[in-house]
Amino acid sequence: MDAGSCVHLKDACVNISIALDGMGGDDAPGIVVEGAAQALRERPDLHFLLFGDEEKLKPLVATQASLINRCEIRHTTDAVAAETKPSIALRQGRKSSMRLAIDAVKNGEARAAVSAGNTGALMAMSKVVLRTLPAIDRPAIASVLPSRQRPVVMLDLGANIDCTADNLVQFAVMGEVYARMVLGVHEPKIGILNVGTEDVKGDSVVREAAARIQSSGLKIDYAGFVEGTDVTEGSVDVVVTDGFTGNVALKIAEGTASMFTDTLRQSFSSSWRGKLAYLIGRPALKSIRRKFDPRRYNGAMFLGLNGVVVKSHGGTDALGFSSAVQVAAELLRCSANERIIEEMETLPSFAPVASVQI
Amino acid sequence: MDAGSCVHLKDACVNISIALDGMGGDDAPGIVVEGAAQALRERPDLHFLLFGDEEKLKPLVATQASLINRCEIRHTTDAVAAETKPSIALRQGRKSSMRLAIDAVKNGEARAAVSAGNTGALMAMSKVVLRTLPAIDRPAIASVLPSRQRPVVMLDLGANIDCTADNLVQFAVMGEVYARMVLGVHEPKIGILNVGTEDVKGDSVVREAAARIQSSGLKIDYAGFVEGTDVTEGSVDVVVTDGFTGNVALKIAEGTASMFTDTLRQSFSSSWRGKLAYLIGRPALKSIRRKFDPRRYNGAMFLGLNGVVVKSHGGTDALGFSSAVQVAAELLRCSANERIIEEMETLPSFAPVASVQI
Repeated sequence: MDAGSCVHLKDACVNISIALDGMGGDDAPGIVVEGAAQALRERPDLHFLLFGDEEKLKPLVATQASLINRCEIRHTTDAVAAETKPSIALRQGRKSSMRLAIDAVKNGEARAAVSAGNTGALMAMSKVVLRTLPAIDRPAIASVLPSRQRPVVMLDLGANIDCTADNLVQFAVMGEVYARMVLGVHEPKIGILNVGTEDVKGDSVVREAAARIQSSGLKIDYAGFVEGTDVTEGSVDVVVTDGFTGNVALKIAEGTASMFTDTLRQSFSSSWRGKLAYLIGRPALKSIRRKFDPRRYNGAMFLGLNGVVVKSHGGTDALGFSSAVQVAAELLRCSANERIIEEMETLPSFAPVASVQI
Repeated sequence: MDAGSCVHLKDACVNISIALDGMGGDDAPGIVVEGAAQALRERPDLHFLLFGDEEKLKPLVATQASLINRCEIRHTTDAVAAETKPSIALRQGRKSSMRLAIDAVKNGEARAAVSAGNTGALMAMSKVVLRTLPAIDRPAIASVLPSRQRPVVMLDLGANIDCTADNLVQFAVMGEVYARMVLGVHEPKIGILNVGTEDVKGDSVVREAAARIQSSGLKIDYAGFVEGTDVTEGSVDVVVTDGFTGNVALKIAEGTASMFTDTLRQSFSSSWRGKLAYLIGRPALKSIRRKFDPRRYNGAMFLGLNGVVVKSHGGTDALGFSSAVQVAAELLRCSANERIIEEMETLPSFAPVASVQI
């Protein structure tokens, strides 16, 4: 297998088994079953283990002809609620559809787990059950965002509130592998999110992370510090940040995008001229909507785990859930975790680096 | 004077003297002079001290009839370049147009300074020359952002990379005073930016700040933690955050907005249908552009200084610079600094609060 990229090897693997949390998400289990069927149309090599209430799941699966022989229901009535605290979910959710899906990855029955349920619980369970990859201290939540120039991989989006320089370096390695292997970017450019591009900007954590990447000997095209506008500009392929900043940034971007599209819709529908313009301009407006459709970018990867876990947005529909399933399949197909392990092995043990002075 | 709000007292004060950095900004001095003239049309009570190269400024001022007797040029050939480090600007820029504008506030010749120049240099000079208000440890950069429901005051936007809980509490007080006094919001709602709304979310700094505000006896309508989407939703009137997160959030929001408007323009201009739709829908599109026009929101306040300093966006035009001048005038008219001092005096000395456990 070509270690450079595997984007053209869609058909190289067969029968990829994916565990689905049938009960996670605002509109579960409907969107899970329909999303699985949609994903199967794109990737006929998938096979699903569907965890949840058989009574609810069975009639739904029966409506999807494509799922015959491709979807095995594993019954459980327990489910993790959206508002359950991760610590409670860990203790009391051992028989939940979410936990059983992760267990299936652990015991080798499935190669990946996908859930649209409670993010905190999913991360906590994944960490406890699967543990992290060798040399990775903490998993990160990563997602692909639309930008002007190219899709941008951003991590961490909320798993780690406080990060060390080592964590950020590991995120850089994981993001680089994803951009190269899954998105097929030749020598992806990596940036660390900061308040300015000059070396002296930011706090000691980002400055130390930058110094470590530069002196590490890692085969990474490190492009330096980037600012918030570089994320939407697409100046780099991978944006590395701590989970606090990343989470706020993601939600601000989502909020701004949604405010814009709604204002656009309202403005066009509030007058006859607007309505006429909308009718005539519909193809143009549709292409914009498609470009920024959050469902196309659905599927946050929990990178750094000893197994593949993908979190779908809780409020998504079947198309969005299908995207999340395909993200999991891509990670498997490209052996992303194996590549991360290889990359981390090239990293010398970190010697303390004198932090840059301002 | 009504301590509740002064938004209706536009004509209560006369001859407000404002010092302008004539040489700061990408298109200075043209936009500074034209912006001053525009601001004067809105507020005939303004008077300007214009610092910069007389040879360049004089002919520009001469073209603006309204500036006669309303604008005094103070000659200096020194100016702070956009890329100059704050520490260098502090040492070598003592005769710069920026520094002299701030000095004019210090020595009482002007009541506020406005500059479209180098943000870091302006903040560094302002701190050294003006110092902070009593009980304010660090000034913050604040700005008003558009949202779905209402204008939202957000601070800090980049002055303080590392913040303590005390800093955040002080930012909350300053933001509250601005929303109440200048925007005229009755009992503004204050939120602290976090990765979730539950009390246990976030790092120890935001949790401690929240606990302190709640136990402080401050007359603040504290609404709890807010997320990135609440900023664009306008769920609260004031969003408090550290300068790192705030800076990234602001630039991501600006970048997303600009990506959207540009994509919209491209989509409409790439086909005859799109062009026709644009022509017919122009009024609707114009209303959107007006709603989100960054020039209308131009003018970042340096709150917490012993004097009023407003930073205009470096790349703005005359209309944007005029907005920044009016922000300064509003801060003065509402005696925002005096109100912040009063508010801070009601704050008991902080006793250490046991941090909330997760």
